[in-house]
Amino acid sequence: MEKLKVEHSSELEDLACYGFDASGLSGMPALVAWPKSADEVSQVLKYAYEKDMVIVPRGAGTGMTAGAVPPEGAVILSTEKLNRILEVDPDNLNAVVEPGVINGEFQRVLAGRGYFYPPDPASLEFCTLGGNVAENAGGPRALKYGVTRDYVMQLEAVLPDGRMITTGVKTHKGVVGYDLTRLLVGSEGTLAVVTKIRLRFLPMPEDVTTLLAFFGDVEAAGRAVSEIIASGILPRTLEFMDRECIKAVEKFKPTGLPTMIEALLLIELDGYPEVIRKEAEQVLGICRNWRAKCEVAADEEARVRLWESRRAISPALYNISPTKINEDIVVPRSRLAEMLAALKRLSKDSGIPIVNFGHAGDGNIHVNIMADKRDKEKFKMGQEIVGEMFKRVLELGGTISGEHGVGLTKAEYIGMEIGEAELGLMRNIKKVFDPKGLLNPGKIFK
Amino acid sequence: MEKLKVEHSSELEDLACYGFDASGLSGMPALVAWPKSADEVSQVLKYAYEKDMVIVPRGAGTGMTAGAVPPEGAVILSTEKLNRILEVDPDNLNAVVEPGVINGEFQRVLAGRGYFYPPDPASLEFCTLGGNVAENAGGPRALKYGVTRDYVMQLEAVLPDGRMITTGVKTHKGVVGYDLTRLLVGSEGTLAVVTKIRLRFLPMPEDVTTLLAFFGDVEAAGRAVSEIIASGILPRTLEFMDRECIKAVEKFKPTGLPTMIEALLLIELDGYPEVIRKEAEQVLGICRNWRAKCEVAADEEARVRLWESRRAISPALYNISPTKINEDIVVPRSRLAEMLAALKRLSKDSGIPIVNFGHAGDGNIHVNIMADKRDKEKFKMGQEIVGEMFKRVLELGGTISGEHGVGLTKAEYIGMEIGEAELGLMRNIKKVFDPKGLLNPGKIFK
Repeated sequence: MEKLKVEHSSELEDLACYGFDASGLSGMPALVAWPKSADEVSQVLKYAYEKDMVIVPRGAGTGMTAGAVPPEGAVILSTEKLNRILEVDPDNLNAVVEPGVINGEFQRVLAGRGYFYPPDPASLEFCTLGGNVAENAGGPRALKYGVTRDYVMQLEAVLPDGRMITTGVKTHKGVVGYDLTRLLVGSEGTLAVVTKIRLRFLPMPEDVTTLLAFFGDVEAAGRAVSEIIASGILPRTLEFMDRECIKAVEKFKPTGLPTMIEALLLIELDGYPEVIRKEAEQVLGICRNWRAKCEVAADEEARVRLWESRRAISPALYNISPTKINEDIVVPRSRLAEMLAALKRLSKDSGIPIVNFGHAGDGNIHVNIMADKRDKEKFKMGQEIVGEMFKRVLELGGTISGEHGVGLTKAEYIGMEIGEAELGLMRNIKKVFDPKGLLNPGKIFK
Repeated sequence: MEKLKVEHSSELEDLACYGFDASGLSGMPALVAWPKSADEVSQVLKYAYEKDMVIVPRGAGTGMTAGAVPPEGAVILSTEKLNRILEVDPDNLNAVVEPGVINGEFQRVLAGRGYFYPPDPASLEFCTLGGNVAENAGGPRALKYGVTRDYVMQLEAVLPDGRMITTGVKTHKGVVGYDLTRLLVGSEGTLAVVTKIRLRFLPMPEDVTTLLAFFGDVEAAGRAVSEIIASGILPRTLEFMDRECIKAVEKFKPTGLPTMIEALLLIELDGYPEVIRKEAEQVLGICRNWRAKCEVAADEEARVRLWESRRAISPALYNISPTKINEDIVVPRSRLAEMLAALKRLSKDSGIPIVNFGHAGDGNIHVNIMADKRDKEKFKMGQEIVGEMFKRVLELGGTISGEHGVGLTKAEYIGMEIGEAELGLMRNIKKVFDPKGLLNPGKIFK
């Protein structure tokens, strides 16, 4: 075996760059390894296993729950240099990529050949496909097209002791043995380090239409969402912004949205032009029935303009409060209005603004509790709101995370959603893969 | 806790009814339990756990790989009396069922309300939804709509020691903890006994069109399949029959199929009428380009007639040989023609007829090696063909089972497809759920 190729970073500031993610938390690693092949990943893990060193796999660090934040003294295993698209197979509509490939880059390569990879997390220009697999990433198009899990056919991965495994099949179907592939998807880098991913892709839809609907009350917007889905139409996106969110965006970057409305839906339909036209009319009919004012993008330029407000949300919220508590709850679609009402009450009672947007079709709300970390008392109140909110989410039949995962930041809440027997199974599965507990310890389970 | 309600079956012939499945193998159970609630399932399992008794969960016994065949002296846990549809939620497009509900019955209940449950294994009039979950059942519509795994949102299940667990979420998305739901789907009743299933369903498509295409050579049929999919059209079914299969069907029940052709594709498109018309023209164009003769069903009656030959396959093959070796291999769609050529060679070399049909769009072929069990020598040759065939399947990047699972009949071959490290993980996962090895032992792993 050739000599272990690990580049050392001795400068503290360089190391610090590998210690944080989008959660706002951070830790200082002892070392960063940038393997360039699966074999090198295996060597790094084997070495660490023998020396009982903690390993934290890391994509681009865009995670929201500190999944890639290392405990003090850990080795960061960065997938940055595992960034090749190894195969694009148009006959079987799948591709093999290394985990460090950027989601947006993969989408562009496919688009250039007339194909389409649906999962589109907001961070798609930065986040890696390996990170997407670890977190089972979604995005606005998940309503129609599902999440990362639905596109992963096969994984090559390295176990904590350095042994390589391959899971899943190259084919459309396969039922031989337990589904290790879907066990690894969403396991937040705690079971194995993924080194190759075979992803399904689709032919590019022929056309897209974008609609905007403004609602006078949140309840009406929620009812419209349910009615659209129940009618048999599956928009590719059905995004939601509440009044506070619209106000924040208009303050940051005025795009002419009416700020006196209570809710906005951004709806996108794709497919054959004649179908889109028909569906768009039905969707407009439903929204107008719920007293919404609607706008249709006449061309690509108008489409981009309609998306501007959606894309401005993150910087706009940052502008209001550089740090905030950001959660990604999900409730059954039909309970969306109730959940939003509960959030409004929590905001009113605490005096802390709560800004909501998200994927209404999925019942997935990005809740932003605008409590600045620097204001200790307010931040503590914000954290109390989180607990209250999760309680309500679970009462409504929801889940505390639709996209971000548990990581460190939600580990203390996992027991609210998952029972002791189920957590016991998960912990024991973790032990099957990682008996020494060296791979990304402390994540998911406290 | 109330007294354990288990009905005993003392008559041997009654017991024998619970000892076989569609694989042709059988075993004699010691006892059959028919629990009527999840709580009773838990009591049965707890009792068996304490007494170290082997339990084999059983749906309708339509499995093809002996997954429900008991080892001598086991207790059969039948889900027959857990047969209620507990909830149908049109707002969130999902339903909760008990495992003993018949697939076809569930489909009819939904159809009556304008909804649609895609997974449609050939045995749908008999097989249970619990069995479908255990085997991750597919069916002709899997090409467009996926398999059982893609519809299971949540499971309630009982662990071998009697503890109840709930996995998954009621929502469209959820990423909290490991994906126990998909670990249970396809685990062939070896990890836990499912007692409730929350299944996603869809609005009924507006219309369906059925086409039949006759090809002069298998290669051309294979190329047409790839081209249809690559064109962006996703038929809901794309079924295949080879010459031997067509001949068998015509002999059994003449429907006027031309028996001199080499392959037949039965193609079904669903969706909006205007889209189906457009897609049907494209599909016909592609097939004719590969020199196929085509037929379009003009109305519902003609549709039913076109399906008659497909539905007649099983009785027709039974007519030729009451016992046969039945496998369900899958290869990447683009390798279909190569696989069929390999099967032709195997048949020619051995002198044993091999009849093929299946889900061409998925690359999933049902291979019927017509070796009667009563002819010992021929049957042994047939089994040798299986090994050769699996070897070729794996060389082509395929899998040895797309729908039937491993059970007992493929357990000896699992090592050809799955490596030692991966099998080790699976065996240890089995131990996490079933440390005493009492639940359906000997299945999947030898």
